[in-house]
Amino acid sequence: MTDDARPIDLIGYEALYLDAMRGMIRKVLQSAASPQGLPGQHHFYVTFATKAPGVTGPPDVLARFPDEMTIVLQHQFWDLALGESEFSVTLTFSGQPKRFTVPYSAITVFQDPAIRFELRLTPNLTPTDGASKQADVAEGGGSTVVALDAFRKPR
Amino acid sequence: MTDDARPIDLIGYEALYLDAMRGMIRKVLQSAASPQGLPGQHHFYVTFATKAPGVTGPPDVLARFPDEMTIVLQHQFWDLALGESEFSVTLTFSGQPKRFTVPYSAITVFQDPAIRFELRLTPNLTPTDGASKQADVAEGGGSTVVALDAFRKPR
Repeated sequence: MTDDARPIDLIGYEALYLDAMRGMIRKVLQSAASPQGLPGQHHFYVTFATKAPGVTGPPDVLARFPDEMTIVLQHQFWDLALGESEFSVTLTFSGQPKRFTVPYSAITVFQDPAIRFELRLTPNLTPTDGASKQADVAEGGGSTVVALDAFRKPR
Repeated sequence: MTDDARPIDLIGYEALYLDAMRGMIRKVLQSAASPQGLPGQHHFYVTFATKAPGVTGPPDVLARFPDEMTIVLQHQFWDLALGESEFSVTLTFSGQPKRFTVPYSAITVFQDPAIRFELRLTPNLTPTDGASKQADVAEGGGSTVVALDAFRKPR
């Protein structure tokens, strides 16, 4: 193999990683859906691509955020329902309850400010875009290292 | 909240992240367990803590690696079986077939040299150790950011 040869990812590591992280977000959101509500100071900022497939919500609100919008799950949210591939929640806008449905695959950033946790993902906007993103993995120039150091305090 | 106040993780982000990554490894290993075998140039180096709960193998081999050992799943492996929480595989040592069973929770490093992919994890050595590791998350001094950049080629 020459230095010019690009390794080809036939396994689909990025897709598997994204699936794993989306599954993790679903489990974290279960903390907010439980009868006891969010533990301690935990709360979530969920940013999602408003044009991603499967996103639904009040058209006037979505129209104001043509790319992304961030919803806050802290005190003012109701009826959080966690499906296999999407969640739904009711929030208030201008005093009116509005229902949103967001596929986990539409989430771009998930944050829990209580412990300064942040997870950035790439949404599946279209199948074509997904294929393009997948190719990026194969074309990685250096080593791909995923470490848990981000969760660790400085020594 | 003062600057001295440490955020407390009541959700267990690190444990959820480790679970997600172990699930991902299981799915990657399925590529090696399929009848077609490993695709392309893919092969796996799996490093695990030999004293982690649930690890079994030939005592003479394990005794030579009191901390960690690395097994290679490339050409010379047989009967790879993927369970919910552990995998088993037969390898040869000095020409003799030897059976190993490794819980996913014992894996410390997973590598696919074909695309220079590396995933480092923390094994569950004992319940006490696990609790200690969990505390590390809560005591993180800075922001915790998990990004997908590692999968991306330089722009």
